[in-house]
Amino acid sequence: MDLNKYLLDKKILIENSLKDIALSFHDCPSPLRDAMEYTLFSNGKRIRPILAITTCEAMGKSCDDILPFACAIEMIHSYSLIHDDLPTMDNDDMRRGKATCHKAFGEATALLAGDALLTEAFRVMSDNRYTERTNSRITKQLIFEISSAAGAMGMVGGQVMDVLSEGKEGTRDVLHYIHTHKTTALLRASVRVGAIFAGAKVRELKKLTKYGESVGLAFQIRDDLLDAEGEEMKVGKRLKKDSTKQTYMKHYGPIASKIRLEQLVEDAVQAVQFLGRDSIILAEIARFVGNRVA
Amino acid sequence: MDLNKYLLDKKILIENSLKDIALSFHDCPSPLRDAMEYTLFSNGKRIRPILAITTCEAMGKSCDDILPFACAIEMIHSYSLIHDDLPTMDNDDMRRGKATCHKAFGEATALLAGDALLTEAFRVMSDNRYTERTNSRITKQLIFEISSAAGAMGMVGGQVMDVLSEGKEGTRDVLHYIHTHKTTALLRASVRVGAIFAGAKVRELKKLTKYGESVGLAFQIRDDLLDAEGEEMKVGKRLKKDSTKQTYMKHYGPIASKIRLEQLVEDAVQAVQFLGRDSIILAEIARFVGNRVA
Repeated sequence: MDLNKYLLDKKILIENSLKDIALSFHDCPSPLRDAMEYTLFSNGKRIRPILAITTCEAMGKSCDDILPFACAIEMIHSYSLIHDDLPTMDNDDMRRGKATCHKAFGEATALLAGDALLTEAFRVMSDNRYTERTNSRITKQLIFEISSAAGAMGMVGGQVMDVLSEGKEGTRDVLHYIHTHKTTALLRASVRVGAIFAGAKVRELKKLTKYGESVGLAFQIRDDLLDAEGEEMKVGKRLKKDSTKQTYMKHYGPIASKIRLEQLVEDAVQAVQFLGRDSIILAEIARFVGNRVA
Repeated sequence: MDLNKYLLDKKILIENSLKDIALSFHDCPSPLRDAMEYTLFSNGKRIRPILAITTCEAMGKSCDDILPFACAIEMIHSYSLIHDDLPTMDNDDMRRGKATCHKAFGEATALLAGDALLTEAFRVMSDNRYTERTNSRITKQLIFEISSAAGAMGMVGGQVMDVLSEGKEGTRDVLHYIHTHKTTALLRASVRVGAIFAGAKVRELKKLTKYGESVGLAFQIRDDLLDAEGEEMKVGKRLKKDSTKQTYMKHYGPIASKIRLEQLVEDAVQAVQFLGRDSIILAEIARFVGNRVA
């Protein structure tokens, strides 16, 4: 199993699907379209849509019809990056090795490009052009899953705590809230979307949810480690900024963070063992998330 | 027919439904919840959800089950006000006679409260707690209708043009684009949501769409007139700011604007004549929109 080739193949599949979706933006004002596409096609890892697709395939279902939902998750992730980088939030100038959206297009256009990507994600999922072959009841369930993970009780809730606890002492409870909401919620939902789409039974969904949660937390702890120990050139964004933020490193130190990270990867691998041979790629992705250098 | 009583009754109905929805925010960080509720319950006219409900009832269908969709539209309208008022956008300190969301809660929390209201609108529509009795195919269609109207080719597209054309000469084409997208798209969708929910036939939907478009444009021209001629105390926001914006007044002058406004109200009234006696309230609402003083 060559994981790098697998990830690249899926990335190409997702980007072709995103390009097809972006064609539907052609009617909107060009500065808006340019800003949306600038961030949507900025060489992201596409880990969220890959998780949705890989979970779906591991459950034995073809991934063709899940692509619009996987792309919608990526659009929501892209919007969150744009808003997160704004001056009033993290005030970042660089993302994925290039200027952030507001640096390239101005604050107002960036703000609105984020709003548009979020809204269009829901348009894509409800648009028969893309999702006609999917049962409407399942579509509704996936929209619920994704909006719950992205909303006030999910990602946005995590962002608020992240911003409001900046520069403060903070507690491990606050850190845990930020981690499980800001990053984990959407990664977890990506796995659940794949599982629900493939018709997972309650017991299977529970295990895959555990996998998604573990991968999500591992992803964030790895992010905290990269922030403290990574190289800006490789990671593609400003680092060491988390000295004022609530991070795993700050609250637990480097050794405990690395042990916790390894444990989470192991939890994720264990959670998908019920899939037998079909668990291999999901397990490899969990290890990849725990070891990534960018 | 006492229109004021009718509007007040519907407003109470909608606000009770919104309060029920707001209970579901109780798990999110309290500053976020407070900021969301601050704007959502800031004495708005609720004209969009009222249009959805009234259209539905004019078509002979009970409005009970459309309420979650009507409320979702109002949540999207609320988010658009929060983002529109931000310093990087219109930079407004006052809205509906009180401090704007970012003045009361800070920019980061306001930005995220907008993001949350937008996302939660889609959560509400896909949440079986609220929409279980509605056929999933119809739910999907309504989500498509609303997301299309609010997204890059709708409201957000209009906002971008509005911001980017500020302080510029501008053309009537640009003005028309802004008006039909920034304001009209969501008002038109409100009427269409009511019509689709009530099972309107193609011919009926076409006429009700015409009604929604006319009311939407009338609403915006009235807004432009109020900006130029209204009193800040009554209108509840800073006025005369549109001197740098593309407005109907700027491009056509006061007399032509008033004539156009009257024509649009008349177009709206004509469009719903096919409903016979059931058109009365829709016609009254069109006149109300054309004459409103706040």
